[in-house]
Amino acid sequence: MSDRLGVAVIGYSFMGKAHSNAWRNVGAFYPEVPAVAQQVLVGRDPVRVKEAAERFGWQESATDWHAVLERDDVHIVDICTPGHLHAEIAEAALAAGKHVLVEKPLTNTVSESSRLVEAASTALGNGVVSMVGFNYRRVPALALARSLIADGRIGEVRSVRAAYLQDWLVDDTAPMTWRLRKDEAGSGALGDLGSHVVDQVRFLLGDEVTWVSGQLHTFVPSRPGSGGVEPVTVDDAAWATLGTRRGAVASVEVSRMAFGRKNGLTLEVFGSQGSLSFELERLNELVVDTGSGGARTLVTEADHPYAGAWWPPGHVLGWDHTFTSQAADFLTAVRDGTQPSPSFAEGLAVQRVLGAIADSAQQHGTRVDVTAH
Amino acid sequence: MSDRLGVAVIGYSFMGKAHSNAWRNVGAFYPEVPAVAQQVLVGRDPVRVKEAAERFGWQESATDWHAVLERDDVHIVDICTPGHLHAEIAEAALAAGKHVLVEKPLTNTVSESSRLVEAASTALGNGVVSMVGFNYRRVPALALARSLIADGRIGEVRSVRAAYLQDWLVDDTAPMTWRLRKDEAGSGALGDLGSHVVDQVRFLLGDEVTWVSGQLHTFVPSRPGSGGVEPVTVDDAAWATLGTRRGAVASVEVSRMAFGRKNGLTLEVFGSQGSLSFELERLNELVVDTGSGGARTLVTEADHPYAGAWWPPGHVLGWDHTFTSQAADFLTAVRDGTQPSPSFAEGLAVQRVLGAIADSAQQHGTRVDVTAH
Amino acid sequence: MSDRLGVAVIGYSFMGKAHSNAWRNVGAFYPEVPAVAQQVLVGRDPVRVKEAAERFGWQESATDWHAVLERDDVHIVDICTPGHLHAEIAEAALAAGKHVLVEKPLTNTVSESSRLVEAASTALGNGVVSMVGFNYRRVPALALARSLIADGRIGEVRSVRAAYLQDWLVDDTAPMTWRLRKDEAGSGALGDLGSHVVDQVRFLLGDEVTWVSGQLHTFVPSRPGSGGVEPVTVDDAAWATLGTRRGAVASVEVSRMAFGRKNGLTLEVFGSQGSLSFELERLNELVVDTGSGGARTLVTEADHPYAGAWWPPGHVLGWDHTFTSQAADFLTAVRDGTQPSPSFAEGLAVQRVLGAIADSAQQHGTRVDVTAH
Amino acid sequence: MSDRLGVAVIGYSFMGKAHSNAWRNVGAFYPEVPAVAQQVLVGRDPVRVKEAAERFGWQESATDWHAVLERDDVHIVDICTPGHLHAEIAEAALAAGKHVLVEKPLTNTVSESSRLVEAASTALGNGVVSMVGFNYRRVPALALARSLIADGRIGEVRSVRAAYLQDWLVDDTAPMTWRLRKDEAGSGALGDLGSHVVDQVRFLLGDEVTWVSGQLHTFVPSRPGSGGVEPVTVDDAAWATLGTRRGAVASVEVSRMAFGRKNGLTLEVFGSQGSLSFELERLNELVVDTGSGGARTLVTEADHPYAGAWWPPGHVLGWDHTFTSQAADFLTAVRDGTQPSPSFAEGLAVQRVLGAIADSAQQHGTRVDVTAH
Repeated sequence: MSDRLGVAVIGYSFMGKAHSNAWRNVGAFYPEVPAVAQQVLVGRDPVRVKEAAERFGWQESATDWHAVLERDDVHIVDICTPGHLHAEIAEAALAAGKHVLVEKPLTNTVSESSRLVEAASTALGNGVVSMVGFNYRRVPALALARSLIADGRIGEVRSVRAAYLQDWLVDDTAPMTWRLRKDEAGSGALGDLGSHVVDQVRFLLGDEVTWVSGQLHTFVPSRPGSGGVEPVTVDDAAWATLGTRRGAVASVEVSRMAFGRKNGLTLEVFGSQGSLSFELERLNELVVDTGSGGARTLVTEADHPYAGAWWPPGHVLGWDHTFTSQAADFLTAVRDGTQPSPSFAEGLAVQRVLGAIADSAQQHGTRVDVTAH
Repeated sequence: MSDRLGVAVIGYSFMGKAHSNAWRNVGAFYPEVPAVAQQVLVGRDPVRVKEAAERFGWQESATDWHAVLERDDVHIVDICTPGHLHAEIAEAALAAGKHVLVEKPLTNTVSESSRLVEAASTALGNGVVSMVGFNYRRVPALALARSLIADGRIGEVRSVRAAYLQDWLVDDTAPMTWRLRKDEAGSGALGDLGSHVVDQVRFLLGDEVTWVSGQLHTFVPSRPGSGGVEPVTVDDAAWATLGTRRGAVASVEVSRMAFGRKNGLTLEVFGSQGSLSFELERLNELVVDTGSGGARTLVTEADHPYAGAWWPPGHVLGWDHTFTSQAADFLTAVRDGTQPSPSFAEGLAVQRVLGAIADSAQQHGTRVDVTAH
Repeated sequence: MSDRLGVAVIGYSFMGKAHSNAWRNVGAFYPEVPAVAQQVLVGRDPVRVKEAAERFGWQESATDWHAVLERDDVHIVDICTPGHLHAEIAEAALAAGKHVLVEKPLTNTVSESSRLVEAASTALGNGVVSMVGFNYRRVPALALARSLIADGRIGEVRSVRAAYLQDWLVDDTAPMTWRLRKDEAGSGALGDLGSHVVDQVRFLLGDEVTWVSGQLHTFVPSRPGSGGVEPVTVDDAAWATLGTRRGAVASVEVSRMAFGRKNGLTLEVFGSQGSLSFELERLNELVVDTGSGGARTLVTEADHPYAGAWWPPGHVLGWDHTFTSQAADFLTAVRDGTQPSPSFAEGLAVQRVLGAIADSAQQHGTRVDVTAH
Repeated sequence: MSDRLGVAVIGYSFMGKAHSNAWRNVGAFYPEVPAVAQQVLVGRDPVRVKEAAERFGWQESATDWHAVLERDDVHIVDICTPGHLHAEIAEAALAAGKHVLVEKPLTNTVSESSRLVEAASTALGNGVVSMVGFNYRRVPALALARSLIADGRIGEVRSVRAAYLQDWLVDDTAPMTWRLRKDEAGSGALGDLGSHVVDQVRFLLGDEVTWVSGQLHTFVPSRPGSGGVEPVTVDDAAWATLGTRRGAVASVEVSRMAFGRKNGLTLEVFGSQGSLSFELERLNELVVDTGSGGARTLVTEADHPYAGAWWPPGHVLGWDHTFTSQAADFLTAVRDGTQPSPSFAEGLAVQRVLGAIADSAQQHGTRVDVTAH
């Protein structure tokens, strides 16, 4: 195992489980990338992290991430903690010469993200790579969509219609959680769901958002907390209109109150010569219309992005496969010493757009120039 | 035929054809409403209107609508002309004691619409009824949706996601038409398509729009005209966020540039206990989710609104059937001397919202209070 | 009105209503065909037929079809009675020199149908035309499908997967009706629904069925009748495999017991270079796959079959429009003295296939040669 | 690792990859089942099996399955070879006291399968368990469907409409393979695809097939082989009607020539009080209709079968997850010494039905009694 790249994942709950799954499986499906060793899983609770480490295929567990950064058998640090810890850990890891993967959002604030972008830039000069984990970029259908757009297959993109709708807060007696406190979570639906949407708009179009107009709303302003009724200080839902450098306009709607939508990321891209449609709950499909009606493409052919690594045509992938493909792309960049995508700079760009939307909302929807942020 | 209500339709192109179809067929499907006689079709071109009259089942044609208003055998005047003529004809018709149906939009301006509301109110005192023709209110699935919402089946409505997307201007070499000149058309996609959407939001929710934030855009700013390149002075597309009196938020997107969408009115209504989805290109279906997943309801059962008038379950209706059902509702109101819905006041309310969206767009998206209009 | 073709419809219930609708409207949408006059509606009950005639736009009603056949102002006889009366009326009408449209099935028996084929052949020699009314041939999407197949767009057709599923008998306490008695109805789901399916297989492929293997089943063998429990003597459901002259194989399933399917005619055609899919409950759509995924085509463009006669793109048609387009095709043939399609011979061909399926079912599914019938 | 159950997989291509994936991941998602060690991957080619073993997470590779059966550190033998080798290996493994999982089909012949059923029965007496791998039983939506049916949620099942359509042979110049030679493959589409369909009919309904009527067809009777044109000796497509003990009727269609269908297993179950629909290309969804229209259920909730082991609601699974869940069920049975499902006896039952269909086809479709096989 000595020639393998040692990986440490920090965090072992939802995202830690998903990232562990990726590291455990990447070699089986992407034999061309460097082999990895699941060295150590890091978490605060020594009992629970040990249990998770055994279950998820890690050789060891640990509770002190500082110590993990000093290990010679750890080459990659994959940060799956809550967002407010991202900056500190990532900076330290880069400083220690570790390749760094940070689960989205890059950080909770633009200033922290800016600092990380600098650190990443320095590190890259030393052959140390970094990436932010917007896993939906590795959905085969969305990677195909980007490639069709880049190839001009739908002409000049004019508009995007995007939404990310969930319903886990639809019940107004659902209890308070840290995710609904602004000081801890930073943002509500906008940051959590909107970040994916904004990243996709940038990714699919290969374009920059230059202005935004937004509205935020909290439908259920207080919820039962452990110590009585507590105010909800983040948004339940957000709406925005975005303009891009090349003149496209995107509408964005995100909500945690959309009854019946479980993981409803939907994207429609309209160009001068075609259109594309996607919905995450049917993530193996891309609807492509270049003049003969919307053609449902099952994106499982060997020549589709990522799909060839997996199974024969028609054998569909799930949500978690995106993390495994993400790991493969990251490992390729590590091997080559090149910048994987999305970079920290791209993570920062997303944060700037979200910040501008929040500002616009405070100004009753007036357009805000993103570049001014 | 002497006991029949005599109808005059003014206008014989697209809408004139659709309304003629309604008057020709209403008696066959709605035997309980007063019988009508297709008395006279009115248009400017004597040859073409005569031809249309014969084809569409009218007893006569005429070119002078003033004269038609004086006929004793005309009891109902149905106005299908371009919008800038609505006010004058409708006022005259009401003054002449005729029941009046005006195709949407009520008029092109808020001031004209306000005048008509007054005239209609006076007329109703004399048993003369008036209605504006938002035909989609008679789509069985949408009438069912309204009724489910009114009955509380999806709880308190929190948000609406609405779009009306078409693609007839997607080709940027498509020629200039009067519809793209502000002085003639009044508005672009916003007025044409947005009016339907705003009417549906009001209709479905039984609620008033109180504030809006909007953006307008013209993707193709000039087009080949008969006398050379000509500027397009209306919007190709519009986006808006709407707030209602009871606290719901609606997102609205309309476009004439959405590649592949032919008549793509889509409506999603999210409540605290359920959701509804509708798309006009599949107008016989309503997706109802009250907790067991989105159930596709084929709205063709005898106990569904309007559906019982037509065919057995599963025998689907088309776009034009909505006009026939609209005529039936109008005739019922004529018979009873009651106010049919939507009234001119409702048509005015839609115009106010559209006006506020345009104002907001001019103010870079800042929220505008609708009631101030 | 003297230059118009006078029409008599015999029968005024479900099919009489649908055919009346067609005659009332055909001129408005198909101005190029001969104009018609709705001369007389014929039925047994003088009161009810009079009421229906008024409602459906007929000038008169009558109870004696023999007398109607003698009228000089009747040029077209449209037979919408139950099937066991078709043969007698159609023969008499042809003998009287009337053009004849017979609602499907042509007759209840192969021998009656054979007789009518002869009579029709003789009549055509005298410029008198006849047609059997398989209205689904005038669904624009199905007409487009046929044309795509004929043009070789999906290559050589290899298989068809077809079903016609309804659920009006799913409740086993639903009462007995004449439709469930073999001596009156002739057949159950097979004749009623299977006839449409078999006609479509022949129509779409332009091919002949040469062998069949079939199974019939009655899930609910008795039902409450007015005089107590009564045996059901026709099939509730049927299944068949059909072979064609050119080597295609079609699977057919029909049922009146398919919970939740209201009018579920579905057709999938698989060729060597493409495939087509259709479902009647979404009759404006055809899914066309020629290698880029199944493209949902909204069959409402001006250059689509029949669609140009109606409304602009995206303005969808309903079930009843097919009858109007059928009337237009019939009138064109009347004008030209040519054979409209489907001819009585085609109606007979369908009956032969259905008969062979019933025979095969009696022989436990053994293949039966259709041409031997 | 000494307390872990040692697993050997025999075969390392498509199914070997899928099963390896299951053993590698089962512990991460099903912590309650016994832990496993990926002991050894077995294959004929020493170089390629070694490479596969490294890639797929196995500790070793081997080429002699007989030797592997003698190892004390191997407790489970998972057979992923071609079907004609299943019987010999499985018998030897059971005799050696190993728990045995056999990928479907159980064997290629009824007689071999019968022998295995006996061997399995003897083994179970000694606490040694065996199972046949119909992985689709672990699709959450299908497991949910079975449970809804068992609970009577759709009443008495009357009919099933099933198909399994693929298109990998649609090009008639596609080359000859061993899969198209009867002596090697045993059967064509019927055995490969039909086995899944028949297993699902039995699984979903909890019922036995008692009679069948079938047709087989080879659309492309010869294909280019390495030594010139070679006859295709198996079926390209098959059709069957099946009757069950409790009186349901199922229609089955399978094809490798269905243009555009990649992995098109579709199942519709119609009961007296509801219906269910499923399609494998959208395997996270089950459409449930119990009277309010077909409700699309996203089968990803914690209380849905298998779904709770994976990710939060709305985070969809793929094809391969079914194998992991299958491994979990197998391990539970190993732990408890109970019979996992489907047993070898169930694998044999499927083979009997397929054999009866082939016999019926030879007899031109005449019904064949399955129990007589």
